[in-house]
Amino acid sequence: MDFSALPTTAFIHPDGKNRDAIATLLHQVIDLLVETMTQATNRSPLPEPLVLKDRIRNLPQKSIDLEQLLEETHAQIIHSMNAAHPGYIGHMDSIPTTLSVLSDLLVAALNNNMLSVEMSPVFSRLETLVLQQIAQLFGLGAQANGVLVSGGSLANLQALIVARNIAFDSLENGIMHGQKPVFLVSEVAHTSFQKAAMVMGLGTKAAIPVKTNSNSQIDIDDLQVKLAQAKAAGQHPFAIVATAGTTVTGSIDPIVAMYNIAKTHQLWFHVDAAYGGAIILSERYRHQLSGIELADSVTFNPQKWLYVAKTCAIVMFRNFDLLQHHFRVLAPYMHDHDGWPNLGEFTVQGTRHPDILKLWLSLQHIGRDGYSAIIDHNYALTTTFTNAVKARSFLALASEPQMNLVCFRAQPTALPLDQWDSWNHGLQTWLLEKGNTFLSLPIYRGQRWLKAVLLNPFTTTDHIHRVFEHIDSYYTSHQG
Amino acid sequence: MDFSALPTTAFIHPDGKNRDAIATLLHQVIDLLVETMTQATNRSPLPEPLVLKDRIRNLPQKSIDLEQLLEETHAQIIHSMNAAHPGYIGHMDSIPTTLSVLSDLLVAALNNNMLSVEMSPVFSRLETLVLQQIAQLFGLGAQANGVLVSGGSLANLQALIVARNIAFDSLENGIMHGQKPVFLVSEVAHTSFQKAAMVMGLGTKAAIPVKTNSNSQIDIDDLQVKLAQAKAAGQHPFAIVATAGTTVTGSIDPIVAMYNIAKTHQLWFHVDAAYGGAIILSERYRHQLSGIELADSVTFNPQKWLYVAKTCAIVMFRNFDLLQHHFRVLAPYMHDHDGWPNLGEFTVQGTRHPDILKLWLSLQHIGRDGYSAIIDHNYALTTTFTNAVKARSFLALASEPQMNLVCFRAQPTALPLDQWDSWNHGLQTWLLEKGNTFLSLPIYRGQRWLKAVLLNPFTTTDHIHRVFEHIDSYYTSHQG
Repeated sequence: MDFSALPTTAFIHPDGKNRDAIATLLHQVIDLLVETMTQATNRSPLPEPLVLKDRIRNLPQKSIDLEQLLEETHAQIIHSMNAAHPGYIGHMDSIPTTLSVLSDLLVAALNNNMLSVEMSPVFSRLETLVLQQIAQLFGLGAQANGVLVSGGSLANLQALIVARNIAFDSLENGIMHGQKPVFLVSEVAHTSFQKAAMVMGLGTKAAIPVKTNSNSQIDIDDLQVKLAQAKAAGQHPFAIVATAGTTVTGSIDPIVAMYNIAKTHQLWFHVDAAYGGAIILSERYRHQLSGIELADSVTFNPQKWLYVAKTCAIVMFRNFDLLQHHFRVLAPYMHDHDGWPNLGEFTVQGTRHPDILKLWLSLQHIGRDGYSAIIDHNYALTTTFTNAVKARSFLALASEPQMNLVCFRAQPTALPLDQWDSWNHGLQTWLLEKGNTFLSLPIYRGQRWLKAVLLNPFTTTDHIHRVFEHIDSYYTSHQG
Repeated sequence: MDFSALPTTAFIHPDGKNRDAIATLLHQVIDLLVETMTQATNRSPLPEPLVLKDRIRNLPQKSIDLEQLLEETHAQIIHSMNAAHPGYIGHMDSIPTTLSVLSDLLVAALNNNMLSVEMSPVFSRLETLVLQQIAQLFGLGAQANGVLVSGGSLANLQALIVARNIAFDSLENGIMHGQKPVFLVSEVAHTSFQKAAMVMGLGTKAAIPVKTNSNSQIDIDDLQVKLAQAKAAGQHPFAIVATAGTTVTGSIDPIVAMYNIAKTHQLWFHVDAAYGGAIILSERYRHQLSGIELADSVTFNPQKWLYVAKTCAIVMFRNFDLLQHHFRVLAPYMHDHDGWPNLGEFTVQGTRHPDILKLWLSLQHIGRDGYSAIIDHNYALTTTFTNAVKARSFLALASEPQMNLVCFRAQPTALPLDQWDSWNHGLQTWLLEKGNTFLSLPIYRGQRWLKAVLLNPFTTTDHIHRVFEHIDSYYTSHQG
């Protein structure tokens, strides 16, 4: 074709004809990346957003100059969420491993497709082998395996689809007239369960919320009650979901007790360990996941506490073969490859980005010992943080931390109750502006709380002491 | 924490303490990328796979040496699907734009999250602004907008979920007992429609297949018949789906005629232009999409014919506000931001990779003129390829190409009919081994065909002439 219509670096010429220009551009972008990411501490954890409306021109007719594009990209970078900052402790988002960043570069250049083995001959096989290892790590047994999906919501969705298809034999014919399918899940579980219920045609109300105790864990008595009520109302429960690491407080449901109820009633048992699954790598804390090895399916997101760049989420099945008859929809344009599955037939997605390289390289580079050291450090910081909350009578914990999340709020008793939410909001803004610290501000049990996620390996005890100095100074200066 | 437990380059230190080691590693990986990708032509379009079983050790306790990991990654690269090769003309997978590769690098380092505006302050806004522009480009009107999703299957799924929720008011309560929801779609449409029907609890059979004519386009008469049959059987059709660019032959359904039927029956009208949507950028060929501006929803995947690295898929809605009441499930841990939507509430996914930067940068860098030039080149090659098929009496076309796909097969009349499939399979292998050309081998109308997707900008008329020389030599030497 007439390449004069294209900028020189539009593509990497497969013959190397633009090799010098490409090498120059790529090294230039690496310099930009190194410059910005090694100075993350110099920017706010949550910078002011860029006003894009005036900057984003309409789709241009002619190529826009590369220097201009890199300049604009630079501005976008320095105004983005700055999760690498040690004061970014507000969400389950963190600095990524170096090798996961490099993997995404290489994977983008290769542009393989997890849809089929033919389109990703190495990565499809790698995913199947590595996820089998991870399923073993969770103790899910010899028949277990999993797939990577683009985010935890898809993992939870797929687990429930398989559970539903098995319970109602619904792959081909759908849910026939009869009892309404429902499942039971913590009232503080992730919203992806309501969304999954909606997607699956059951409606959000089919995700029956079970009450939690003062520690945000499912109340087993209420689980029994809700199960009985559903049956009495003519509904058909098909699954129970335990959460290992709730979004707001990082709490872990009583996994074994819930498993026992599930099995008594012949229900599918899913554990959403999207966040908490990582502690399987810590000798010291993995006992908290005890019982997860009994699950029929498990969600686990290395994109969270294993620091793999987003997205990287796993759904595992104790008996992966079930997907063959209760999930798989065949694509006529794909072939079998010596027993290696075409993964597009085993996920809700078809075409999918190869997330396996960054997971595999991160695990190899950090190692189990490395992850264990980080997780133990996160727990130690959590203790420091929690003790600092408890040492202040004007602060209250939402629940006793079981992971590296501390959810708390101030109770400024000098002020009327209806002003506490906005007071805490003010404190959050103060911490960001004066203390270079970002805490998030979830609604929990009808009130605003402050949430700290002690995930960043570069956050230190000193940071935490400074956070509480700022909390104290805000409290002193803002008592109404 | 005690960083001695971690390799030096585990993370990019936000203070720059490991800046030199990081810079060295990153530039080393760029060299690896430049070396491998500028020599794509020296490898087979589809190399022999790596035997991974012996190479993939179990999750290591200690960090594995970086040099060893890069060596292994190098081996994985050179054994991966080599879509950059000008002889890779087998699937809708191609060489990615340079800027989309670099975007994925930067985006991974930033690790922002499209779940909420707070977690991706720049990219969330950019996505909303740019997709509005793209919706305008398709003529979808002032109320139109879209979201990016991780692959076209999710785009088609989301369009049908919205259609179903509107038709059955099913967001909260699901599909109540009553008439079974069904939708109508081409018998040769993408399998994601059957999968969507399964996911949505309707069962794969709810995707009612409509017959196609000899050109792989929906037969309007059969669409009317199937619609009447469904109603007579007590089913409740809620949507009609047109395909603009079928997977096997790149055919375009009669969009306007289908729209008219949809509106007569008050059905949702979705156009799956995952592949074909790109020609909206070609002044010369965009007329083939005429009528797409009437759709209620459109799927369009820049990851295909716009050469954006995977994944990058769009679902657009002519009235985006409908998602507010018929799709959105609120997350209590997120805030509003001056009217910018938290995109996690507007997709099936929650956490999502920012795919918008690579889309935006590719559009800016290539420009409309650049894309138009590539698309016109692809069409010219298609004509050359199609004429070469027609010039050979032993070759037959599956349908007259409307895009840059040519689906054809040999009819070696000297052999019995039941050997033709394996003969064509043999020809495909021959072309890969002798001609460095990868064609895929779909099943279509019950037979094996050869499929050429003339997508790679570096494929030339010369390549095509050589392909037919190899076809001729195989035919001469393999007539039984």
